[in-house]
Amino acid sequence: MRVFLELQFDGTDFCGWQRQPQAPSVQSVLEDVLSRWAGVRVGVVGCGRTDSGVHASYFVAHTDLPETCAERGWEDGLRRINGMLPPSIAVAAVVPVSGQAHARFSASERTYVYRLHEAKDVFLQGKSVRVYRPLDVQRMQAAADFLVGTKDFACFCKSGTDPHATTWCDLHRVDVTRVAPHRVEVVLTANRFLRNMVRAIVGTLLEVNSGRRQPEDMWDLLASCDRTQAGKSAPACGLYLTDVVYPDEIWPADWDRFARRAWVERD
Amino acid sequence: MRVFLELQFDGTDFCGWQRQPQAPSVQSVLEDVLSRWAGVRVGVVGCGRTDSGVHASYFVAHTDLPETCAERGWEDGLRRINGMLPPSIAVAAVVPVSGQAHARFSASERTYVYRLHEAKDVFLQGKSVRVYRPLDVQRMQAAADFLVGTKDFACFCKSGTDPHATTWCDLHRVDVTRVAPHRVEVVLTANRFLRNMVRAIVGTLLEVNSGRRQPEDMWDLLASCDRTQAGKSAPACGLYLTDVVYPDEIWPADWDRFARRAWVERD
Repeated sequence: MRVFLELQFDGTDFCGWQRQPQAPSVQSVLEDVLSRWAGVRVGVVGCGRTDSGVHASYFVAHTDLPETCAERGWEDGLRRINGMLPPSIAVAAVVPVSGQAHARFSASERTYVYRLHEAKDVFLQGKSVRVYRPLDVQRMQAAADFLVGTKDFACFCKSGTDPHATTWCDLHRVDVTRVAPHRVEVVLTANRFLRNMVRAIVGTLLEVNSGRRQPEDMWDLLASCDRTQAGKSAPACGLYLTDVVYPDEIWPADWDRFARRAWVERD
Repeated sequence: MRVFLELQFDGTDFCGWQRQPQAPSVQSVLEDVLSRWAGVRVGVVGCGRTDSGVHASYFVAHTDLPETCAERGWEDGLRRINGMLPPSIAVAAVVPVSGQAHARFSASERTYVYRLHEAKDVFLQGKSVRVYRPLDVQRMQAAADFLVGTKDFACFCKSGTDPHATTWCDLHRVDVTRVAPHRVEVVLTANRFLRNMVRAIVGTLLEVNSGRRQPEDMWDLLASCDRTQAGKSAPACGLYLTDVVYPDEIWPADWDRFARRAWVERD
């Protein structure tokens, strides 16, 4: 039987979501724990491949478990699974879905948040990126506005990515908002994101902030389709996957959104 | 010349504010860094003595610096001091005050926040305390309401404290609030707090939550003046000093509250 796992992880100590031969990944730790709990070897498929050091306050993965797991009760299972996982990975809910539901291919929308702060803050260490120049939110937003829509984002896509894959995305929103006197967040929602895309966009917006670029330069940058024309990639520790949206028919009718909303609303 | 330092610290790796012979304290680290920067040995006096592992999102200390320090410019000084301090201690502002201003004795009010969460959350690890029983905010508030006012809080005071010191405090507010679907905060404001008082109060409120005590039991508990009658002390890592209030005449007329508010508003 197929289930969706609603997850959260602190990416600091992981090489990203995806299993790698030499380094600990969220996927490999989760697969090991689930396999121990299920009593058979199980694999998990994630909603996306977050880079090394990137966090997720909401992440969805699917896995196929033996029917006997359901008989043991999900509530007890969740407690045991969380107890076996390290403090840096948490499962909020196990949701039975149809065998056609796919964590990656069924998702219709994803949201990322990039966190920046302008003054030393001991509680944001490794959880947000410190900038040493005041952030001009209006100016960054003016540049961000050029990015919204269905466009070719090749200039923000890590080179070395499959050259045959499309680099077109439908970016629904990019909002640059001051959330506290010394904190700014960039929120991006799209149907899909390319590798390294959010960090490249934020790095470019920071160059607009510093005056090295003008907001209207975004136009030529997009047209260039050239990664070397965009800004330096912003550090991983400021980036969070915060939401993944699936069509309503994916979720069971009696599904309680409480567990999920517990995290999503906090951000 | 006397200055107030507006500070923030993550208490995880410290034995508390106060200098101790064997363990790193916030005071000792701060004194060492300030002395290196000032070029003479300086001491600092804190607004209170937080316990081992307790955090502060806002803390005030005073120190007396040579006049030459002011000539070098506070903005540059602040940058250098923060650069020398570990990531777990930050100084938001250096504010020149009169020689009579005292970080501890001039303070008229302090606020502490105690953070609790009911579901595994990777981003609250060490920053909030996990409880394994749903929190009944109304019931906890009903008990908390008995504590507000000018009362003898001896039953919440760590034993071994100076028996001649008064255990009366004026507790202005105790608010138990659900701040997110799985997060509850207890906010306490008083003219003064006794040693271990907030953690003993929160530990007792958790026993009210679990049903071991009734809200109205607070009345007899206060009357007992006996620490052994109150609940177990709640863990240090959920506790934050979040605000310290001084009379307006302490602060210079042109003082910009921005730096301070940056942190205070975040909580």
